[in-house]
Amino acid sequence: MDFEYKMVIVTRGNLDLSPGKLAAQVAHAAVACALSTKKNNSKWFNKWQNEGAKKIVVKVECIEDFFPLKEKAEQLKIAAYLIEDAGHTEIPAGTKTVLGLGPAPGNIIDQVTGDLPIL
Amino acid sequence: MDFEYKMVIVTRGNLDLSPGKLAAQVAHAAVACALSTKKNNSKWFNKWQNEGAKKIVVKVECIEDFFPLKEKAEQLKIAAYLIEDAGHTEIPAGTKTVLGLGPAPGNIIDQVTGDLPIL
Repeated sequence: MDFEYKMVIVTRGNLDLSPGKLAAQVAHAAVACALSTKKNNSKWFNKWQNEGAKKIVVKVECIEDFFPLKEKAEQLKIAAYLIEDAGHTEIPAGTKTVLGLGPAPGNIIDQVTGDLPIL
Repeated sequence: MDFEYKMVIVTRGNLDLSPGKLAAQVAHAAVACALSTKKNNSKWFNKWQNEGAKKIVVKVECIEDFFPLKEKAEQLKIAAYLIEDAGHTEIPAGTKTVLGLGPAPGNIIDQVTGDLPIL
């Protein structure tokens, strides 16, 4: 199943969010990536939807780890959205919380996130 | 701010998911609801996007609580998606995990979920 289409959302280990707040941030990233890919790469988007729209949530240590992942994804023409929180609740406005990537074919997106542990 | 557009994702208190698994389920619901509303009610979708695409994660006690919420949302022409897990990991296939609702104007969606606590 290595070549299955998937979306990967990357979270930060050093940001202490409640499960509900984390889920909302992941949802922001997922919606942004889905809409972008639907618009810009409908082939990838449709294949992903037809396979069940797989989503994986993984983690990195800290915010600095987001940037090389985002850059590599963009080089591979994978949708990449770094989400900033509006700051209404648990964390300051503008805090970068999660990085959404994809959807993309597994063999391509795994070049970016294949080594990251599942959250 | 009662009339702000928002999406509400309802989780179940009695389903023990890891934070990453919960976030993926919430993301499934958010993407399904966003795409459906974009297609079927572009006015609501565009207003929600332009206001920052607010998403709230709330909770109910158990699965039976999902059904009246879904029915009421549908009566109000709000997108409503009950997510079933594919069962690859923590829980049996077909388990209903979360209910996505909206986006919709706050004064309408609050008729469905306004009394539910934030997760």
